[in-house]
Amino acid sequence: MRLTCRWIPVLALVLLVGLPSEAGAQEATAADVLFTVNNLWLLIATFLVFLMHLGFTALESGLAQSKNTVNILFKNMSIIAIGILTYALIGFSLMYPDEFLLGGILGWAGFGVGTDAEGLTAAYDPGFTYWADFIFQAMFAATAATIVSGAVAERIKLEAFLVFSALYVALVYPVLGSWQWGGGWLDELGFYDFAGSTIVHSVGGWAALAGVILLGPRIGKYVNGSIRPILGHNIPLAVIGMFLLWFGWFGFNGGSVLSADPGEVSFVFVTTAIAAAAGIAGAMVTTWTVHKHPDVTMVLNGALAGLVGITAGADVVTVLSSVMIGLIAGVIVVFSVMLLDRMKLDDPVGAISVHLTCGIWGTLAVGIFSPDFGVVTQLIGVAGYGAVAFLSALSLFAVIKATIGLRVSEDDERRGLDLAEHNMEAYSDFQIFNTRS
Amino acid sequence: MRLTCRWIPVLALVLLVGLPSEAGAQEATAADVLFTVNNLWLLIATFLVFLMHLGFTALESGLAQSKNTVNILFKNMSIIAIGILTYALIGFSLMYPDEFLLGGILGWAGFGVGTDAEGLTAAYDPGFTYWADFIFQAMFAATAATIVSGAVAERIKLEAFLVFSALYVALVYPVLGSWQWGGGWLDELGFYDFAGSTIVHSVGGWAALAGVILLGPRIGKYVNGSIRPILGHNIPLAVIGMFLLWFGWFGFNGGSVLSADPGEVSFVFVTTAIAAAAGIAGAMVTTWTVHKHPDVTMVLNGALAGLVGITAGADVVTVLSSVMIGLIAGVIVVFSVMLLDRMKLDDPVGAISVHLTCGIWGTLAVGIFSPDFGVVTQLIGVAGYGAVAFLSALSLFAVIKATIGLRVSEDDERRGLDLAEHNMEAYSDFQIFNTRS
Amino acid sequence: MRLTCRWIPVLALVLLVGLPSEAGAQEATAADVLFTVNNLWLLIATFLVFLMHLGFTALESGLAQSKNTVNILFKNMSIIAIGILTYALIGFSLMYPDEFLLGGILGWAGFGVGTDAEGLTAAYDPGFTYWADFIFQAMFAATAATIVSGAVAERIKLEAFLVFSALYVALVYPVLGSWQWGGGWLDELGFYDFAGSTIVHSVGGWAALAGVILLGPRIGKYVNGSIRPILGHNIPLAVIGMFLLWFGWFGFNGGSVLSADPGEVSFVFVTTAIAAAAGIAGAMVTTWTVHKHPDVTMVLNGALAGLVGITAGADVVTVLSSVMIGLIAGVIVVFSVMLLDRMKLDDPVGAISVHLTCGIWGTLAVGIFSPDFGVVTQLIGVAGYGAVAFLSALSLFAVIKATIGLRVSEDDERRGLDLAEHNMEAYSDFQIFNTRS
Repeated sequence: MRLTCRWIPVLALVLLVGLPSEAGAQEATAADVLFTVNNLWLLIATFLVFLMHLGFTALESGLAQSKNTVNILFKNMSIIAIGILTYALIGFSLMYPDEFLLGGILGWAGFGVGTDAEGLTAAYDPGFTYWADFIFQAMFAATAATIVSGAVAERIKLEAFLVFSALYVALVYPVLGSWQWGGGWLDELGFYDFAGSTIVHSVGGWAALAGVILLGPRIGKYVNGSIRPILGHNIPLAVIGMFLLWFGWFGFNGGSVLSADPGEVSFVFVTTAIAAAAGIAGAMVTTWTVHKHPDVTMVLNGALAGLVGITAGADVVTVLSSVMIGLIAGVIVVFSVMLLDRMKLDDPVGAISVHLTCGIWGTLAVGIFSPDFGVVTQLIGVAGYGAVAFLSALSLFAVIKATIGLRVSEDDERRGLDLAEHNMEAYSDFQIFNTRS
Repeated sequence: MRLTCRWIPVLALVLLVGLPSEAGAQEATAADVLFTVNNLWLLIATFLVFLMHLGFTALESGLAQSKNTVNILFKNMSIIAIGILTYALIGFSLMYPDEFLLGGILGWAGFGVGTDAEGLTAAYDPGFTYWADFIFQAMFAATAATIVSGAVAERIKLEAFLVFSALYVALVYPVLGSWQWGGGWLDELGFYDFAGSTIVHSVGGWAALAGVILLGPRIGKYVNGSIRPILGHNIPLAVIGMFLLWFGWFGFNGGSVLSADPGEVSFVFVTTAIAAAAGIAGAMVTTWTVHKHPDVTMVLNGALAGLVGITAGADVVTVLSSVMIGLIAGVIVVFSVMLLDRMKLDDPVGAISVHLTCGIWGTLAVGIFSPDFGVVTQLIGVAGYGAVAFLSALSLFAVIKATIGLRVSEDDERRGLDLAEHNMEAYSDFQIFNTRS
Repeated sequence: MRLTCRWIPVLALVLLVGLPSEAGAQEATAADVLFTVNNLWLLIATFLVFLMHLGFTALESGLAQSKNTVNILFKNMSIIAIGILTYALIGFSLMYPDEFLLGGILGWAGFGVGTDAEGLTAAYDPGFTYWADFIFQAMFAATAATIVSGAVAERIKLEAFLVFSALYVALVYPVLGSWQWGGGWLDELGFYDFAGSTIVHSVGGWAALAGVILLGPRIGKYVNGSIRPILGHNIPLAVIGMFLLWFGWFGFNGGSVLSADPGEVSFVFVTTAIAAAAGIAGAMVTTWTVHKHPDVTMVLNGALAGLVGITAGADVVTVLSSVMIGLIAGVIVVFSVMLLDRMKLDDPVGAISVHLTCGIWGTLAVGIFSPDFGVVTQLIGVAGYGAVAFLSALSLFAVIKATIGLRVSEDDERRGLDLAEHNMEAYSDFQIFNTRS
């Protein structure tokens, strides 16, 4: 906010307009300005992806019961903090080994260097600053843990979840990410995952599956062979979450172009929005046919399914393919939710169906719809990520289960985690069924 | 997210800094970078306008009764999907005939072309890419249908609304839009509507009016000559909607500059924000005087009234005029709501008053406050759009009424559309008056 | 939205690509494009800071009782209108005296000038347009009043609050702001407050403190020497508010760089996000230790505390320092809330602790963590701002108390301000404890 000497170079530039380019070293060149624009777009994408954390928060709390709302809100606020701090401490260095040594120390390179942003920008390279790269990637890292949150909601112990998230974001996600985005073996194999259908969403989804298996279903969900719906308590809140996730996805996918390239970013916006719209259409028709009435939670999951589905190939498939990818994702997600319920895998918000099932679909779709990539290679990537992500998460959850415990007591689950763990209610002025009176 | 060969040109540029401009064809020129910036701003405006759909969703569901919440949420999610998909299929081609032939096929040009974004950008022209233009315009198209949604809420059949929206967005809106923005007869006449007070908001508002006339009022609204208030069930949700709409309007109006021109976009931000603020002031004073207490729903409609009002002339009126336009819009909207109620035209959220009444006001205001435009020409535009939009909508609604039916049964209306059409409740844990117990 | 002659220069530029730079005066230079980018970033920051007003609205209404919700929503909508309009009328001119004379009149310069944005941009200077500067600053000004809103909630008279806000934003805030950002005495002394820990947040916080002292606590808060919690009625709404505030802070701090400088803006994004994350961590550990259970409202205030804390030095401290500043802010805010309660200073949302206590901490932290600034100078700035802000606010509130009165009647307070002042309820369909039944 200060009008200080930092403006002098800019003023100088303005005065220099029209002079030949040899006139002065301070004059901004077109390449300098392009660098500024590319970097700015990465920062804009950063705040968009940041807002996805509010999207997840709203979606998950809206689709759960009112008695567990405070707990979900607390978890989601914790995750963003844990995600950013652990990614700064260790994750960024693990994921991008080249940068690991930049600061010459074992922790996050950035902690070892000064605030001389100019110098860092020059030392670092590829079209944006070191700091922009870090903060954009940190928002992605936190996303993987957030996906788990919804699936294990309403019965996991708070401490257990926080410990799992910290370890998964700090260690598992970055190592898995480095396979592809750090220039690892899958990158060399020709595997393609543009913005993370597999690397972010499936990696989160596999952990969600591991957690759900070890936790077991909520009390009252599967009784005498029948599946009993446990209704979300605040559907407007869930829909707010869906819209904010879609909003943030313009940064998640658009920012993954890693520059403001007009053709590429614009095209990614189009495929992303069209896949989401087609996902709504696919889920709407499916649920109307299968369930005989239009189910609003299926439709909102359809939008998210389309978004997860397009994420792997948003820049390499045609617009018509993006319609197909989204449409099929919208159909798949409805059947995936039904199938998981039959397998008694209780996922309160449908996170596994959205992020894992449709993450796999989207990754394979790159091989199906783009001539430049092979289905087999994509399948190898899916399987490789699946095996390591799932087993890592299963091991972490198992260790936590054996030590601090994974699940709250039956009594606490019935009372709700808000009173049991937080001694607080989300809606203290309102009359609520079941939990009070 | 991949650091691949796409970065080589950028690195090359960085290395080339300081060399004379003949050095290489890949070097970005200032004009290239300007193109990137202009395109980026259009994409930013796109995600802002996208979020207006969450704004409408929150506003409309908050101002309706809790028993119809799921239905409104469902409609609003459907509209964004329908809007984007039909605009891709046919709308964009109808609205901008020049582009119609670009792909050489009858459907959307874009479906016929490949993913070579570079080529498209070069073939297309005017300061941004083909894809950015499409997705920005698609978000606008979906807006017109959303405006209808609120006015017909709480008694329209879901199927009827979806069919109407699809036809209105796919056919009526683009043809009407082409009159002005496609370089049609009104453009040649000298009519001016910067970002769509008439072309978007009134076109939506006229359809809302047609729907309200054919549907009739909600049960219990007008009884024995008296007007009975049917209260909105979640006022914070409605206020969230207002703020998000205003937020999105920075993209709606700011993006309509169609470049990142510093003077123009900045100026449009100022007139837009000031008109919204003045709309609040106008509605506040009016409602405090007329209703004897400060009415929060009138004040939020005052902000929206100011925004609709400034939309036609945001770039051509003075700042002082933007105060006047917003202030008068804020006054008008209060009286328009009262007048419609006296005419027994039941609009649960005030959509007709905000978008039609203030859309007309804003369009005429261009003629009043800007010396470059004439009130008579503006009036011709308003009347031309009004006649065709209203009659088109009335015809469509009449055909739907005669075939699949327009209104739910009295029994369903009393139970609420959530249970009747979706077999679901928005707030299943909460004790609700009237509809249960 | 019109493809008119305004595009001819752009098209000309595209055609001129490759020609030597002497070719034409219309050709955009790199400096021109840099100006466009810098200006665009200021506008983006503007809409981000605008959304903080929704953040405050959601936070404050969620943490208050349901019976006062409409009143809080109304106040927050009014403030943004009052803030923008009074800043246009007088505030901007008072804060930046140089611009005061630009239009040659006593009111806001901008009201006196035409809509020729090109000319204004040229006349004005420093890397962005006059209009962008005004609208960005106006959003800041409105923030100062909003901070007061939460602290005085649930018992202040609506008229009293509106009058106070108008006077504080129009007169006190700009004069105080000019001390530093207008190039006044504190700027010359070497005081540093990057984006307003003191100049915005403490200035709001001091007024909040003055209001709370003169108003006294809510009925039932302090009874027979014990502190009785009055619970927030909608915790998801409060958490939405926190996330939106953090989202907006990327513009509040990032925009305060006053250019899109890649190194500086990126760095500020990192320190801002890390301080917020560390604030969550600090508050979480503190509340878990002190209160024996993890308190969700303390944690969300921890995030805000970290953000306020880093605001003064976001561009001049190291990343490691930003962790410390946020962490300590998260600890301090918990104890500040407890201390104020012991002093019977009733602040329903913790605004004084977040904005005043942590604003002071953040300002002093610049002197502690950055070698370029002195703690003593920072303390002088804190004290100078504190004395004048507090006494101004106290005087304004005292005059209002003596004239139109400051506090609602006991009966109105018990019924709730929604029914008493607005004749309306926020949740008319829901069964509410205490206030009804």
